Amino acid sequence: MKKLINAVEDVLSESLRGFGLAHADVATVSHDPTFVARRGGPKQGKVALISGGGSGHEPMHAGFVGYGMLDAACPGEVFTSPTPDQMIAAAEAMDGDAGILWIVKNYAGDVMNFEMAAEMRGGPSATVLVQDDVAVESSLHSQGRRGVAGTIVVEKVVGAAAEQGADLATCAALGRRVAEASGSMGLALSSCTVPAAGAPTFTLGEAEIEMGVGIHGEPGRRRAALDRADALSAEMIAAVAEDRGLRHGEEVLLFVNGLGATPLMELYLMYDACARLCAERGLLIGRALVGNFCTSLEMAGVSVTLTRLDGEITRLWDAPVQTAALRWGA
Amino acid sequence: MKKLINAVEDVLSESLRGFGLAHADVATVSHDPTFVARRGGPKQGKVALISGGGSGHEPMHAGFVGYGMLDAACPGEVFTSPTPDQMIAAAEAMDGDAGILWIVKNYAGDVMNFEMAAEMRGGPSATVLVQDDVAVESSLHSQGRRGVAGTIVVEKVVGAAAEQGADLATCAALGRRVAEASGSMGLALSSCTVPAAGAPTFTLGEAEIEMGVGIHGEPGRRRAALDRADALSAEMIAAVAEDRGLRHGEEVLLFVNGLGATPLMELYLMYDACARLCAERGLLIGRALVGNFCTSLEMAGVSVTLTRLDGEITRLWDAPVQTAALRWGA
Repeated sequence: MKKLINAVEDVLSESLRGFGLAHADVATVSHDPTFVARRGGPKQGKVALISGGGSGHEPMHAGFVGYGMLDAACPGEVFTSPTPDQMIAAAEAMDGDAGILWIVKNYAGDVMNFEMAAEMRGGPSATVLVQDDVAVESSLHSQGRRGVAGTIVVEKVVGAAAEQGADLATCAALGRRVAEASGSMGLALSSCTVPAAGAPTFTLGEAEIEMGVGIHGEPGRRRAALDRADALSAEMIAAVAEDRGLRHGEEVLLFVNGLGATPLMELYLMYDACARLCAERGLLIGRALVGNFCTSLEMAGVSVTLTRLDGEITRLWDAPVQTAALRWGA
Repeated sequence: MKKLINAVEDVLSESLRGFGLAHADVATVSHDPTFVARRGGPKQGKVALISGGGSGHEPMHAGFVGYGMLDAACPGEVFTSPTPDQMIAAAEAMDGDAGILWIVKNYAGDVMNFEMAAEMRGGPSATVLVQDDVAVESSLHSQGRRGVAGTIVVEKVVGAAAEQGADLATCAALGRRVAEASGSMGLALSSCTVPAAGAPTFTLGEAEIEMGVGIHGEPGRRRAALDRADALSAEMIAAVAEDRGLRHGEEVLLFVNGLGATPLMELYLMYDACARLCAERGLLIGRALVGNFCTSLEMAGVSVTLTRLDGEITRLWDAPVQTAALRWGA
């Protein structure tokens, strides 16, 4: 295992400490229990957005803590759900007396732990479950579809609404609407290696890919031969657009996401291919995002997310955001 | 070769087209000759900053075109200098009648072609040569030190000064001062594969690294055994701090840069290690940057850059910037 680490058991704590040092302008890191919170504490009267999940998907979620997006993120060990005590501590720290909105990716461990946290803590809260991965209906760690890069779109859009004063019910309904409007599919050119495991999660032949791969290396739809970027893009765009029922003339956010080890040069090339395919379907690309945002450690590969836009979602997408990984506007 | 591409000869043009589509809010891409220019054309009375170099280091340089940074970037083929016609076309497109500042990384091809462009075009211009890589004194493609991630610091700081109305001589002097204040060193855990070559540039054993690697895979100081992150960081921080004569009590920008395939989790862990080492030397970390900014395709590895800060450099670093890859401020 070739990694820039000291000891396997210290990877998460040292990495989070580095994150906290590098981004003290937007976030603070607490340990025991571990969570990352927006700098400056809770904003009175604002719904607090809290997400989290296993680590190894950086910048998701800690990189999205800050003005206009998440109030807190709870990182578990690599590819392992965080625990309820982390979620409760994050909620205590960031509760602005307007309720907590939990944004949860659909994996069994996450779902169970966030549910437990909400029950143990009590108080007004709601949950948005994200299950945007159209590749498979159920998977190794999920009943129903997996939550992947579309989670970031949910966090951005609802984060903007919460910042503008939307109440808990409105934020929850909006989050479900954005989640429903979003579909994703990914493919891997290589596996990742979980530090504690020390060996690749799976293996692929020299000219083989995993089409529909999960962000923990879960199986996708099939092993396939590496094909041209256009052909790979066509399969992903078709899968997502058809699943989400996207029709000629509709406007979308096109989000091309790297899984970790894919050069930006290839991500832009994939964006170009996907944009052409959207145009062929009559889909209008209203907004774009390209980069490594929802990763799987050092996995080589890409995912494509389409979110159906409307005036409200577009306006909230454009609203200012100040986080480690997304930053724009005033 | 496992890459998300269509055909080797189309990688650059398709990738740039994708870049242009995704970032139409800040930049426009021209072909024949190829360059990326700030949206909206030249700003009258402003020094035009133009950089460029071989592709494969994305987001450098096209990702730094926009308000407060570069006016244009000229991308060559992968790891190949752009040609004078690209530079001249970029200068023609972005000349605001206050002169051109060429920001050039020290590689023989780049130096020669930018020089030729300046001579062929004529008109007021100046060049800032960046040679921040302290690893080796000369290398495969350079007489003298290589220009690497420190180039981004030069582009950001001088870009802010130019935006605020500094004249050509002031921008050139500032650029040289920032370049001189910056030192970098990198290490590779794996090679990259140039698309046109189709095979890895070099090979490393399973527990071997290249300490001091260049951003094209050029040899560094030595092959070494993979060591703990703390030990690797210590060697890089010592090399840079001693080379640049950084002393107890001085303030620095600490920039931990991924070479392409290294997970953000590891980059933050390296940042944590480097921050501790700076503290041990009495260096005060005034500003931080962590991420994949000056890459080598899918090379796994990291570089560390230290820039000595002063009031002027810090103020210009903080000034607003609106590019594809760096974005902050108003």
